[in-house]
Amino acid sequence: MPDPQTAAVAPLDPALMAEIEALRATTHTTRRATVSAMEDCLHVPFPVLDHGFIRVVDYMGDDGAIVQAARVSYGRGTRQVREDRGLIRYLMRHRHTTPFEMAEIKVHVKLPIFVARQWIRHRTANVNEYSARYSVLDREFYIPAPDHLAAQSADNRQGREGVVTGEEAAEVLDILRGDALRCHVNYERMLNAEGDGHDPTRQGLARELARMNLTLNTYTQWYWKIDLHNLMHFVSLRADPHAQYEIRVYAEVLADILGWWVPLTTEAFQDYRVGGLHLSRHALAVVRKALAGEAVAQADSGLSPREWRELWAALGQASSPES
Amino acid sequence: MPDPQTAAVAPLDPALMAEIEALRATTHTTRRATVSAMEDCLHVPFPVLDHGFIRVVDYMGDDGAIVQAARVSYGRGTRQVREDRGLIRYLMRHRHTTPFEMAEIKVHVKLPIFVARQWIRHRTANVNEYSARYSVLDREFYIPAPDHLAAQSADNRQGREGVVTGEEAAEVLDILRGDALRCHVNYERMLNAEGDGHDPTRQGLARELARMNLTLNTYTQWYWKIDLHNLMHFVSLRADPHAQYEIRVYAEVLADILGWWVPLTTEAFQDYRVGGLHLSRHALAVVRKALAGEAVAQADSGLSPREWRELWAALGQASSPES
Amino acid sequence: MPDPQTAAVAPLDPALMAEIEALRATTHTTRRATVSAMEDCLHVPFPVLDHGFIRVVDYMGDDGAIVQAARVSYGRGTRQVREDRGLIRYLMRHRHTTPFEMAEIKVHVKLPIFVARQWIRHRTANVNEYSARYSVLDREFYIPAPDHLAAQSADNRQGREGVVTGEEAAEVLDILRGDALRCHVNYERMLNAEGDGHDPTRQGLARELARMNLTLNTYTQWYWKIDLHNLMHFVSLRADPHAQYEIRVYAEVLADILGWWVPLTTEAFQDYRVGGLHLSRHALAVVRKALAGEAVAQADSGLSPREWRELWAALGQASSPES
Amino acid sequence: MPDPQTAAVAPLDPALMAEIEALRATTHTTRRATVSAMEDCLHVPFPVLDHGFIRVVDYMGDDGAIVQAARVSYGRGTRQVREDRGLIRYLMRHRHTTPFEMAEIKVHVKLPIFVARQWIRHRTANVNEYSARYSVLDREFYIPAPDHLAAQSADNRQGREGVVTGEEAAEVLDILRGDALRCHVNYERMLNAEGDGHDPTRQGLARELARMNLTLNTYTQWYWKIDLHNLMHFVSLRADPHAQYEIRVYAEVLADILGWWVPLTTEAFQDYRVGGLHLSRHALAVVRKALAGEAVAQADSGLSPREWRELWAALGQASSPES
Repeated sequence: MPDPQTAAVAPLDPALMAEIEALRATTHTTRRATVSAMEDCLHVPFPVLDHGFIRVVDYMGDDGAIVQAARVSYGRGTRQVREDRGLIRYLMRHRHTTPFEMAEIKVHVKLPIFVARQWIRHRTANVNEYSARYSVLDREFYIPAPDHLAAQSADNRQGREGVVTGEEAAEVLDILRGDALRCHVNYERMLNAEGDGHDPTRQGLARELARMNLTLNTYTQWYWKIDLHNLMHFVSLRADPHAQYEIRVYAEVLADILGWWVPLTTEAFQDYRVGGLHLSRHALAVVRKALAGEAVAQADSGLSPREWRELWAALGQASSPES
Repeated sequence: MPDPQTAAVAPLDPALMAEIEALRATTHTTRRATVSAMEDCLHVPFPVLDHGFIRVVDYMGDDGAIVQAARVSYGRGTRQVREDRGLIRYLMRHRHTTPFEMAEIKVHVKLPIFVARQWIRHRTANVNEYSARYSVLDREFYIPAPDHLAAQSADNRQGREGVVTGEEAAEVLDILRGDALRCHVNYERMLNAEGDGHDPTRQGLARELARMNLTLNTYTQWYWKIDLHNLMHFVSLRADPHAQYEIRVYAEVLADILGWWVPLTTEAFQDYRVGGLHLSRHALAVVRKALAGEAVAQADSGLSPREWRELWAALGQASSPES
Repeated sequence: MPDPQTAAVAPLDPALMAEIEALRATTHTTRRATVSAMEDCLHVPFPVLDHGFIRVVDYMGDDGAIVQAARVSYGRGTRQVREDRGLIRYLMRHRHTTPFEMAEIKVHVKLPIFVARQWIRHRTANVNEYSARYSVLDREFYIPAPDHLAAQSADNRQGREGVVTGEEAAEVLDILRGDALRCHVNYERMLNAEGDGHDPTRQGLARELARMNLTLNTYTQWYWKIDLHNLMHFVSLRADPHAQYEIRVYAEVLADILGWWVPLTTEAFQDYRVGGLHLSRHALAVVRKALAGEAVAQADSGLSPREWRELWAALGQASSPES
Repeated sequence: MPDPQTAAVAPLDPALMAEIEALRATTHTTRRATVSAMEDCLHVPFPVLDHGFIRVVDYMGDDGAIVQAARVSYGRGTRQVREDRGLIRYLMRHRHTTPFEMAEIKVHVKLPIFVARQWIRHRTANVNEYSARYSVLDREFYIPAPDHLAAQSADNRQGREGVVTGEEAAEVLDILRGDALRCHVNYERMLNAEGDGHDPTRQGLARELARMNLTLNTYTQWYWKIDLHNLMHFVSLRADPHAQYEIRVYAEVLADILGWWVPLTTEAFQDYRVGGLHLSRHALAVVRKALAGEAVAQADSGLSPREWRELWAALGQASSPES
């Protein structure tokens, strides 16, 4: 796990950088639970993609807050019986989710619009997004690095397969850069804002309309506030290998922050949620038979050929029993 | 209020049109509460903007469902005491919102992406959006009609003021059309999909990446399901004159549907929610004084000059007392 | 699975029974998706516990509604590729939950207050409860049947272990009946309502206060509306053997209704959600080793002794490898 | 507004009191926004009713957090234009609610079960309640003070009217005390817990069952976490004169905490939300006419006689125009 004190820092516009330095230079005394690693990383903008970042703006609670809430639920007895780590693991294992809703975090995120559109589907969070009705979006677009120019899979409509290379890659990058730039130049022309290039004979199109000319790789930003339970849900879905690369890299930074913030909860999350395997009813029957030494075959397993292959791969068997 | 039987119908692609005709031709017998005007409009695509539409896909409950739920809450006595209309007005006036959550509606909407991004901020709804990770978006963009080319207000950053006209308007329309088209042509080129124009020597960029080249006026579509209480909240915010025109026209169609679906609730909604005026603490003090025949003045009212002007305009006084 | 046409019917007060018969006798013509088995069971009060019931008041959508919503998300390609059952299983397996939010159900439930307090923790639903501020609660209490007088487990604070029997059982039943009855008699005395026993010299305590004298086994009732996705979540938690018997019996009726309403979804739910097994990270490592023929031992597995025992029991091995 | 440093403190059981003193004695250094008045009141149990309390366990953000979030939404321009107070008032007035979701608070509450049942209807919050499945509830009940023994209104089923007095009051208090006590004594007898009075020949009823014998005035407790926007909504509904006294006193303590936590937001909340008046469409028409010097009459106003009376009372006119 990276160390918040040595992690790379995203280059920001000087005004925001000065604001961040002022915030980091100011400390207060508090009676609230405080996490040392979070204090270290507070306000630090961790870079994501070519122009994005995530920075923690505030947090509430720590591993102890989960324990504290669980002990209200389970009453006096809990106080002596279990140490914190055991209680947190018990809660995670048995899906007692409400204590994990008792901690909260707020992050400032800069991200391409097409990533923002995926992200916002997680509704159990609070969001304040930069408004292009009121303000003008900067000329910043996401352009993939060459090794992330994923090619379309031929046999799986959702999938990627390898990367686009050579002349095709060069053309793709030219298109992405050229179209985003032209659209933004025309956006500013339609706005006809005060300042350089302002033409007093033109009225200027309303911001709320001009924005429709921007491409989906334009960067936006927001404040995003979420409780620990829902943050883990987000990370489990979006740090998954099946998630699109461009949102996965944000989820991976959030996973790092999770580890700094609530290390006991994160360990339990890894053990009981994301690091395991869910066996379907038919898969469970197959595993039971195999462990009992009985023969198993895809044909009468109730599993599709694909489920069969994926099951044995997940169980670490290079080849499935039938092959 | 328009009549669902004579309202204009959006031109759709023939496959969807055939599907809709088949759905409309099929009827079933049910014991569920049924609203005749909703049956008339079920599946009919009402046109919005240049390529968008709203069509009702399903609904559950009617005005009677609100009454039924309220009577469970308020018990036996309610049965005799009040007729349906009175009870619904009582609930609306006193903000007893839970009975209005007992009816539900599902609509299919086609809308530009920048409108979808505003719309989705209403989190208390269920959404299934067309996925550009899996599928290819059609070459359809929103291009404003000339009388909706709003100009930016000079003194209000959020505002519009008049419309852009003449050569400026022509240039804006050229930009919007040209950039959206070029971006979509390049999107398809990067995809290198099977069919006409497919180049077997190129791999094709993954759909999930290629979509980032599209402009925000590209049309998307979704199924949107919401309860009656939250639908009224949406309509009150988005059919408001301050809402952006491009989302307001959708909210106005939803307001029509509301009237067909639950006429008693809609009447109460108009009377107690959207057709009235909220007086702030200071505004209330001013109105009390004015009604008592006392002199009132902005300076010692606690209202800002702008609040003062807006108050008297809302109260129908051409000029405020001070002028 | 029971048949809605032959399932037992709860005895209800004659007024509600007459209302139900009138509702069942009325049919309408609709263009909406209709499920024959649901029409059969609409409004029928299925008995639960000694005085409770569940009856379906309305529903929206069927298995086809899930398919329809998924096809909007995944676009044209889906139309040909997969038949409905396969698509529903694919969605369930890969936890694409939003299409399952596109169907909705509303039930009328009569249940003891202590069960209602557990139930209400599921927040993603709409509720209208009978209000004891406005109305008077009937003299009906839940008294467990003798074979459900669970005894407290000695070694597990949450658990039950066998049942209380003999004189102890008789005393428990006497206490439950006697205290609930006395409290309700005193409740009515404090209310001093109009009618028999009204004493004109007394004012009568406000209903909102008098209700505090009732015991937690008093029956209440509510309308409860929920989408299919959240209903499955409720059933998976509350029809589980670890759930308290008194809520489990309600969840089991909801599970039956699920099967009538959306049979394809229910089959997938059984196969991929409730009928399987979640292996933790450490449990997965153990199973991989065992399948590869390697020796496994609790001591170095990372599993607690209890997790170890439960794993092998779930895997159908009467004795774990170490014993 | 009371001062958190001199407010009365609820007497608590010594174990919790020692825990609180230890928490208050420990301070940390933090870079997070800190509110001095909240630090003063952190963990202090403010008494409510006869045995209840509210204590702040944690908080996140301050007035500045709302401003900070709004400035992300509205972009650069906002920085210079408006000072904090003006921006907060603008947001409140125009119902821009999302910035107010960016601050969060967590409180520990002890309250009677019948109050908890009203409270929990506010679903947009996180709750961890003391579980009577796992633990034994203390012998503590809410018994109203004599001046809060509200009598039932004769003409308004929901209403109170005066208080019950004399012999009737004495009898009511005897009933409430006697029934609650007897039910709790029998609860403990059925539990047959270890310790004094344990009978080794009896098994003891499961806690999850025995609890059903408790009365609704028994105290429970929970941790409750909510964002600032939803807290204001709760306070506006429950600190209202129409709310039941027993929940209103909790809402009033929350209103005090609101004032300590976010004074600028609280001022705007008082001015624009709770201290004003909502005029319905018909009421607005009446006020417009009256201000224009025209005659107004209930009969042709569209207002019911009751609405008419309430309107003029709210407008501070001792007698309405018609009388």
